[in-house]
Amino acid sequence: MNFFEKLLSDYDFTLDKKGVSGKRLASRLAALSEIGLTPDNGSHRIGFSHEEKAAKDLVKQWMTEAGLTVTEDGAGNVFGRLNGNNPDLPALLSGSHVDSVPNGGHFDGPLGVLAALEVAEAWKQTGFVPERPFEVVIFSDEEGARFNGGFSGSSSMIGEATREELLPKIDIHGDSFTKVLEDIGLSVDDFFNSKRDLKQLEAFVEIHIEQGKRLERAGVPVGIVTGIAGPCWLIMTFTGSAGHAGNTPMDDRRDALVAASQFIYEVQALPAQVSSSAVATVGKVDVLPNGVNVIPGEVRLTVDIRDIKKETRDQLVDLVIEKAKAITEEHGIELQFEETLREAPVPISKDMRQKLEKSVIAQGIEPVYLPSGAGHDSMIVGHVLPVAMIFVQSKDGISHNPAEWSSLSDCVQSVHVLKDFLEGYDR
Amino acid sequence: MNFFEKLLSDYDFTLDKKGVSGKRLASRLAALSEIGLTPDNGSHRIGFSHEEKAAKDLVKQWMTEAGLTVTEDGAGNVFGRLNGNNPDLPALLSGSHVDSVPNGGHFDGPLGVLAALEVAEAWKQTGFVPERPFEVVIFSDEEGARFNGGFSGSSSMIGEATREELLPKIDIHGDSFTKVLEDIGLSVDDFFNSKRDLKQLEAFVEIHIEQGKRLERAGVPVGIVTGIAGPCWLIMTFTGSAGHAGNTPMDDRRDALVAASQFIYEVQALPAQVSSSAVATVGKVDVLPNGVNVIPGEVRLTVDIRDIKKETRDQLVDLVIEKAKAITEEHGIELQFEETLREAPVPISKDMRQKLEKSVIAQGIEPVYLPSGAGHDSMIVGHVLPVAMIFVQSKDGISHNPAEWSSLSDCVQSVHVLKDFLEGYDR
Repeated sequence: MNFFEKLLSDYDFTLDKKGVSGKRLASRLAALSEIGLTPDNGSHRIGFSHEEKAAKDLVKQWMTEAGLTVTEDGAGNVFGRLNGNNPDLPALLSGSHVDSVPNGGHFDGPLGVLAALEVAEAWKQTGFVPERPFEVVIFSDEEGARFNGGFSGSSSMIGEATREELLPKIDIHGDSFTKVLEDIGLSVDDFFNSKRDLKQLEAFVEIHIEQGKRLERAGVPVGIVTGIAGPCWLIMTFTGSAGHAGNTPMDDRRDALVAASQFIYEVQALPAQVSSSAVATVGKVDVLPNGVNVIPGEVRLTVDIRDIKKETRDQLVDLVIEKAKAITEEHGIELQFEETLREAPVPISKDMRQKLEKSVIAQGIEPVYLPSGAGHDSMIVGHVLPVAMIFVQSKDGISHNPAEWSSLSDCVQSVHVLKDFLEGYDR
Repeated sequence: MNFFEKLLSDYDFTLDKKGVSGKRLASRLAALSEIGLTPDNGSHRIGFSHEEKAAKDLVKQWMTEAGLTVTEDGAGNVFGRLNGNNPDLPALLSGSHVDSVPNGGHFDGPLGVLAALEVAEAWKQTGFVPERPFEVVIFSDEEGARFNGGFSGSSSMIGEATREELLPKIDIHGDSFTKVLEDIGLSVDDFFNSKRDLKQLEAFVEIHIEQGKRLERAGVPVGIVTGIAGPCWLIMTFTGSAGHAGNTPMDDRRDALVAASQFIYEVQALPAQVSSSAVATVGKVDVLPNGVNVIPGEVRLTVDIRDIKKETRDQLVDLVIEKAKAITEEHGIELQFEETLREAPVPISKDMRQKLEKSVIAQGIEPVYLPSGAGHDSMIVGHVLPVAMIFVQSKDGISHNPAEWSSLSDCVQSVHVLKDFLEGYDR
């Protein structure tokens, strides 16, 4: 059973209504899955790669067929626009991205783009014309696998991408930001000239898989996002003394790993001290010299700290740093740390949440609210525009992995919610 | 100041007596240091490399000049023999190795070979002829950097090297054991046919840098090794569930790294439960997938466990495994482990220690006893022959590093101790 057949195998065809087609959505998810397909049946479409470009080109073709007017800005962001009855009103924007992490899944990103496109298809089929303009958007390089950053496209659109931050970057192959853009036909000057006139835009709504298990446990197809947790990333270096594992008595060691381990173990208890939605994760650890018979002289690790409220998130960052200081002092280990990222959490307005709740209830779905622990393009766009976000149930909460899966029925439910939301936006 | 000049800069020339020359020893240490010299002024002479062979060739030339009869066995072990008054008696063997770890130091190995050669030089100069045959030995591939093993030469000489263990090995460049041997003019058949007739050998005595700080703290140039700790190596894999660092609540995680960290932190307290000389070290940790925003799904780590008594060492291995089992069970994490090495500790006989003590006292040095936490060729030879071992003070205990250093005076003191030990062996 291929990807397309698997999607359709348990599809509830009663969801094919009001011009929405599960089969069309499935065939498009399947077509995108073929671009950058890995031996593990995963998706490998790094930001600004030829694979990402090929995926955009395919979606552009579908946009045109759906009657949308396609434009692309200097950052490679693609917009498929439907003018609506009143082309001068600020547009509603919906979409996501088509790049992936290395060997990632087929839903994270593409679902948000294709669901927005499916609304336009449905309107075309039923002859519905919205009052406001509607734009389906594909943001470039959301995942950031190429330059260890991310959100390049959405940052460029809102005018927050800076030459200072991006031009010095070197990609995973050792190429400069400038060269990477040129390789796919973009230019740096155009990239930093892509800010949209924000007066032309009303709001952004994004459909995305949950990447967690809350909706699965609640038994609902979709959920309403209450806020997007802003991550803070710390890189910490614990420096002790390397030494021979056989010739250094236990009481004469300055083992950087023993101190780092105590820190990692104790960090997990800190989030509960600030809020029930806060999280802290040590995800990356590099031990030096990393030899079986050598006492570790240095440990470099990262801490990812998030919450949906800035106050509690920042409080947790402070607790983590205090913990590291206390433990390294106790062990006679040197500590260095730097903050490499501190994104402000993005709250989602009560108005947006209520609008979404109406649309969810209209589909006969019990409204479930949940925070987004991960960053999304809506987090960036949320700096300047009202945003709303719909999560789709994600099997076992797996994402960034070939096993990523959402049922087609749940995906189509999210299309109906989005369609209802857009149609009712000005009511 | 080059290496040679630095060695001589603080040398106590009153130690030049009874035919022993500090300058000769220094010039030879310096000459070997040039072979495989790294940009960091370290030594890069991997076992079975052309650099190790070049170092052996240079020592062979010096052996011949010192009047020794040079032979090389199928494992590349080099023997420089002085027949003595009674060539039919079992020989006393002394030496070490000339291979190094990657970017290692210039004393670990070469000092043991050149100190033994210096005794032969002194005898040549003074006309002393020993009763028994004396052989200066260079064992091949002690460090094991090439095949992640080590002691190849000494194991071959005592007949413990096996085809089953060595032939499947692939070196750091992807070459087979057979190809690596052939590249430097050795053959596999000869390698496994190199067992010496052990009746021809009386005992082995090895001079080596301490690789620890005990002698430096005691303020003595040399020390008497009481036993060689046998290492046991465990590889442990902790398997939990990877997940998105933002979207997985703290109370819904199976973080392999949190469990592994608790283990690493608690392991350090276990050696004291079995003996004061026992040690346990987690030196190598690999986290998967090792991403800033991904909860670690798997952690692979190594534990190096040592003591000079088999009973306490094995007891400690059991405690470490029990600890890992208890912690993984508590965290709902899967544990797999395998033992990749379990060398028996080698005790050094009271007779040998007393002989060395006499020679140490004869040089006006206070006798200091200490265990060897590291394995050495004497650990292997100790399986079949009586062994003795002399440690030389090592600056800051640093070894396997370009900064490795022992003062020339301390090195020459060890030559005098060795010479006295060999001359008085049958008294």
